[in-house]
Amino acid sequence: MTKPNLLMIVPEKWSSLWTAGLDNSPVRPLVHGQDRYTPGSIDYVLSFRPPPGLLKTLPNLKAVFSLGAGVDGFLADPDYPKQVPLVRFVDNTLSAEMAQFVLLHVLMHHRHQRLFDAAQAQRKWRQMVLPRRTEDTRIGFLGFGEIGRVTARHFVDLGFPVSAWSRTRKDAPGLKSFAGEGELETFLAQTDILVCLLSLTRQTAGILNAKTFAALPKNAFVINVARGGHLIEKDLIAALDAGHLCGAVLDVFEIEPLPDSSPLWRHPKVTVTPHIAAISQPAVAVQYVIDGIAKFERGEKPDNIVDVETAY
Amino acid sequence: MTKPNLLMIVPEKWSSLWTAGLDNSPVRPLVHGQDRYTPGSIDYVLSFRPPPGLLKTLPNLKAVFSLGAGVDGFLADPDYPKQVPLVRFVDNTLSAEMAQFVLLHVLMHHRHQRLFDAAQAQRKWRQMVLPRRTEDTRIGFLGFGEIGRVTARHFVDLGFPVSAWSRTRKDAPGLKSFAGEGELETFLAQTDILVCLLSLTRQTAGILNAKTFAALPKNAFVINVARGGHLIEKDLIAALDAGHLCGAVLDVFEIEPLPDSSPLWRHPKVTVTPHIAAISQPAVAVQYVIDGIAKFERGEKPDNIVDVETAY
Repeated sequence: MTKPNLLMIVPEKWSSLWTAGLDNSPVRPLVHGQDRYTPGSIDYVLSFRPPPGLLKTLPNLKAVFSLGAGVDGFLADPDYPKQVPLVRFVDNTLSAEMAQFVLLHVLMHHRHQRLFDAAQAQRKWRQMVLPRRTEDTRIGFLGFGEIGRVTARHFVDLGFPVSAWSRTRKDAPGLKSFAGEGELETFLAQTDILVCLLSLTRQTAGILNAKTFAALPKNAFVINVARGGHLIEKDLIAALDAGHLCGAVLDVFEIEPLPDSSPLWRHPKVTVTPHIAAISQPAVAVQYVIDGIAKFERGEKPDNIVDVETAY
Repeated sequence: MTKPNLLMIVPEKWSSLWTAGLDNSPVRPLVHGQDRYTPGSIDYVLSFRPPPGLLKTLPNLKAVFSLGAGVDGFLADPDYPKQVPLVRFVDNTLSAEMAQFVLLHVLMHHRHQRLFDAAQAQRKWRQMVLPRRTEDTRIGFLGFGEIGRVTARHFVDLGFPVSAWSRTRKDAPGLKSFAGEGELETFLAQTDILVCLLSLTRQTAGILNAKTFAALPKNAFVINVARGGHLIEKDLIAALDAGHLCGAVLDVFEIEPLPDSSPLWRHPKVTVTPHIAAISQPAVAVQYVIDGIAKFERGEKPDNIVDVETAY
């Protein structure tokens, strides 16, 4: 039996991590821009953001696998072949990684660790009661899927008041749920630390804008771990410089890698991380593709096929 | 009815936070070193580490309240009047605060946040897969009481393997329990991040020493949030400089505030915080004392009276 061909359209540094895991698998990996292939020979694609128009040139494509939980990189392709199933990468590892990142940065802010770091550099013993109590520090999630659910649980357990805003009303232990356009402003007004976990769609693009920031209480803090397209960067900088927001953590950017010229790198109130909040462990991700392909080959369908029309 | 007199033997900055909360309470606060009082008039004492010999000069003392969860500051007084009940401060706020601190610093280490901070300072986009997977990063607690239990739960939930070493065997979800002197070395050999939560007793003083560090795997990380007396500072510095340990977070010190001359302040692998892992919120702590005194006055006993002989 011939192995199905998997075309990997990923940055070079990632492809080498992946091909190693696929070498002795029931799948034959081919790397776009490196290996030669004929379009008709490609059965499956693995990518994060394929060049627009490329997928439609593959006439025998059976399915496309997303390297991440978000699939906006595919939906941005106006020529995405809509009859080809698109599979989202959903795994516990990824949710747990994201929860770790959000916990780390909320706690670093809440507990003033950067202030203690600065005090240490000056050999200053700066003991103090934390100025804002945990039970008075309201965490608000913009978007509330699996990652939100896993993350929120930790904050509830640590004693933070937790709320979320999403399309439909959600139910989770300790969660205050806000739903739909009409409740966005009320949600924002009661959020001290805003965590953006939305998927990027036409509706959510640019949602982190001047109006949103103005609706947050003074001294609010913003964390974006979703997509760069959610954020209007100049609005964030203006809100920080005006002293309305007290800080931000950004893991995702409109252009990645973040260009050298970006003012975000050096802004004293901004933490920049290089899209590492939740990087798939190669071994886990390789297994997700192998399992998914095996299901398609048996005529079954894997979980987490995305509705390409609505992006959910 | 006259109010019982509470003598507060605490640093000046703390006493002012506390007296405010006690002003309209059924207790009359007196501040040692500030207010005048006759020894016979003192009914209760609130302190963290009273000057040795002071408590025995108070002939009508009914009980002593500890400002912290640890009571070593009292047991260090050879003249502690053993017939006087000693009450430990145990509250959920404190455990949750400590859990936050430990979570923050484990995650900061595990997720290489200081490396990303350094990369940001150089405007470098340093994307990488985390070198050690969460499921391969073993957290070990030295000491496992209420704070350990609350803290461990988060790490189990985040996917870390979690173990604890304590006097007696413990049972908690996902916990590997090691007990007694004989199992200490086995416990250490399987611990990548060691978190000291022990109370300070004759048995545990100096437990973070060269022998303990040598028993940890290479590149282990150490967090001490218990007491300065647990750590032999020169042994830690030697283990860090030899490259056997990769870093440490210290919140407690033999002498506090940490003297300006301490090499710990400037050690590149050491994070120093000023004993802030779990600072009692004044309002919560004031209530604990008011409630405790009310119980004694009614002839009842509050929870968490310490056995002064064994310190548990």
